[in-house]
Amino acid sequence: MRVLILGGDGYLGWPTAMHLSSYGHSVAVADNYLRRGLCREENVEPLYASLNLHDRAVLWEQISGKKLQVRIGDLCDWDIVSRIFREFRPECIVHYAEQPSAPYSMMNRRAAMLTLHNNLEVTSNVIFATQEFVPDAHIIKLGTMGEYGTPNIDIEEGWIEIEHNGRKNKFLYPRAAGSLYHTTKVMDTDLLWFYVRMKGLQVTDLMQGPVYGIHTEETRHHHGLLPFFNYDELFGTVLNRFVVQAVAGYPLTIYGKGGQTRGYLNLTDTLQCVRLALENPPGTGQLRILNQFTETFSVNELAERVQEAGSRAGLDVSLKSVENPRKEAEEHYYNPRHTGFADLGLKPTLLSEDILTGMLETVMEYREQINPDKIFGGYAKW
Amino acid sequence: MRVLILGGDGYLGWPTAMHLSSYGHSVAVADNYLRRGLCREENVEPLYASLNLHDRAVLWEQISGKKLQVRIGDLCDWDIVSRIFREFRPECIVHYAEQPSAPYSMMNRRAAMLTLHNNLEVTSNVIFATQEFVPDAHIIKLGTMGEYGTPNIDIEEGWIEIEHNGRKNKFLYPRAAGSLYHTTKVMDTDLLWFYVRMKGLQVTDLMQGPVYGIHTEETRHHHGLLPFFNYDELFGTVLNRFVVQAVAGYPLTIYGKGGQTRGYLNLTDTLQCVRLALENPPGTGQLRILNQFTETFSVNELAERVQEAGSRAGLDVSLKSVENPRKEAEEHYYNPRHTGFADLGLKPTLLSEDILTGMLETVMEYREQINPDKIFGGYAKW
Repeated sequence: MRVLILGGDGYLGWPTAMHLSSYGHSVAVADNYLRRGLCREENVEPLYASLNLHDRAVLWEQISGKKLQVRIGDLCDWDIVSRIFREFRPECIVHYAEQPSAPYSMMNRRAAMLTLHNNLEVTSNVIFATQEFVPDAHIIKLGTMGEYGTPNIDIEEGWIEIEHNGRKNKFLYPRAAGSLYHTTKVMDTDLLWFYVRMKGLQVTDLMQGPVYGIHTEETRHHHGLLPFFNYDELFGTVLNRFVVQAVAGYPLTIYGKGGQTRGYLNLTDTLQCVRLALENPPGTGQLRILNQFTETFSVNELAERVQEAGSRAGLDVSLKSVENPRKEAEEHYYNPRHTGFADLGLKPTLLSEDILTGMLETVMEYREQINPDKIFGGYAKW
Repeated sequence: MRVLILGGDGYLGWPTAMHLSSYGHSVAVADNYLRRGLCREENVEPLYASLNLHDRAVLWEQISGKKLQVRIGDLCDWDIVSRIFREFRPECIVHYAEQPSAPYSMMNRRAAMLTLHNNLEVTSNVIFATQEFVPDAHIIKLGTMGEYGTPNIDIEEGWIEIEHNGRKNKFLYPRAAGSLYHTTKVMDTDLLWFYVRMKGLQVTDLMQGPVYGIHTEETRHHHGLLPFFNYDELFGTVLNRFVVQAVAGYPLTIYGKGGQTRGYLNLTDTLQCVRLALENPPGTGQLRILNQFTETFSVNELAERVQEAGSRAGLDVSLKSVENPRKEAEEHYYNPRHTGFADLGLKPTLLSEDILTGMLETVMEYREQINPDKIFGGYAKW
């Protein structure tokens, strides 16, 4: 299948490109290096440098024999989006091309406006380009479990039937996100659902939890194939950051009470989920919503798991509670459903001792490159 | 109170400015004439020409002795928004500054992107300017009953408590709008609610139904004070259009079965509602949602009412069903609650024979200026 991956340079985009390519799909990646630029601006460079997309595609072709098409440009620009769609004529679009950081989106007005503008403009362009050039294509959109927030009732998979005063209606499950970044994903869902209803688009909206991990099947071939890996509080995800902090001898920083519970998944499961969604399309005129995570943990549980794994690896890992920079419930009910991917055949890679040990070992290879000043509060503020 | 009216040139903005000014408030209006420009571009000029905002403010001052401050500029531009907020320091912001047409938003990609970009950018700027310069100010945002769509259960006033698997949670009432314009209002609500939760903004979000009417208390003084009045299918609202069609001897065009039911209100009630909201603020950190309409009608009922009023005025009014250009339910359940404004003291002006006769008489004064080609399908398509 011809698959266009938007945001193909990112932590998830690049490994997805290799994964789908190795499964025989014809893959094009597009990116404008927005995230690289933001990391440089904010002085939170990743753990190791990554080749640019053109060079990584060459390396991947040398190793796998599979060709990736690369297009560099701003997907807020209709000229660029329309040209890519006309030339590549994707059968499936995997849309990761968003400013991905919740704390970044809350830093200041400029960052908020960039997030809002970038995320909605790209999603709109994807919708219009699909309608105009490839109306039967399947859009796989990366949303987030954070769209739901932490309601006091069970979180269903995208939809809920409400019985009210003796009548019934099925609705989008009501959203209440905890950051502007997450709110732009809510707004993406609003837009996509609207155009599914009006124009018969075919969309899978993935409500993904925080992802952890470094290696995938494909990255094992060469360190130059590793994904972008941040360990700062702006662009790093919590478990990845804890692993780096453990290696650096930096206390694991727990925001407030640490009872914040979320649904997590391994990077390799993200790839598997996207492939399962792609190979099992929902059908024209459908908005399918899948909750994409494999198990839930509180922040305290994650910290304890990393502490234990660190001990086994001979590291002395301490925990430290810090004042919560976010406005969020630190203790709450959390019971999200996630049966959709199990039904599609997902074989989850759960957070085992081996997985944590493997992550610690990989990060230890880059130990000298960790800058402890960048772990917490180290980003450029203005 | 210092009240800043954004979109002060519009069908609702201008009468609101005069109304609040005559009630003793200190009013500033801002607009960039977007709607005038779009009407010219699409070749759907209103029934009569209107003075520009500066000249109307002078006329209003001559008549009422009340001064209106006028600021012309694009509210998507932070420089302009921040300067207005810094200089005027509003205590209340009435935000009408959106591309207001559902059919326009559905015309083509360019119109859709303009709607999305304009509406969300202005709302974001209002949020950030309020936070930065007047954090205690009250934002009154014009939303639309169309945010809810036509669900099969009763429509509550903004919120709904859901009981699910033995637990309860109060949510924003789930939205499912019928046009991109309406969807941008859903997204506005997402944004406003987010910043109310995070930053303690004080917001009233008005879910307003279609408005009808020409005159208000203040316009009676001089025809130069009349609001913008469209009778085309892009920018005209249904009852206003039917009145013009009746006067022009043009059949009343009913989309499909005509069972589409909505909550309507008189222009004078819009002014009263906005004033009631303004004079009864919800308090800091609150998002108050009020359903702003006074009675519900189906399109068929409206057409019959206009036909009867036309007969009494000696006009021969026929009805004609046309293929529905919109994707919407033509027969549906519709039971929206609207007790909030009654509790605040709203005295509604219902759609009486006198009201309809008055509208017909006013439009007859401009009979010679009606261009029947502009009523239906007459806009510039590209």
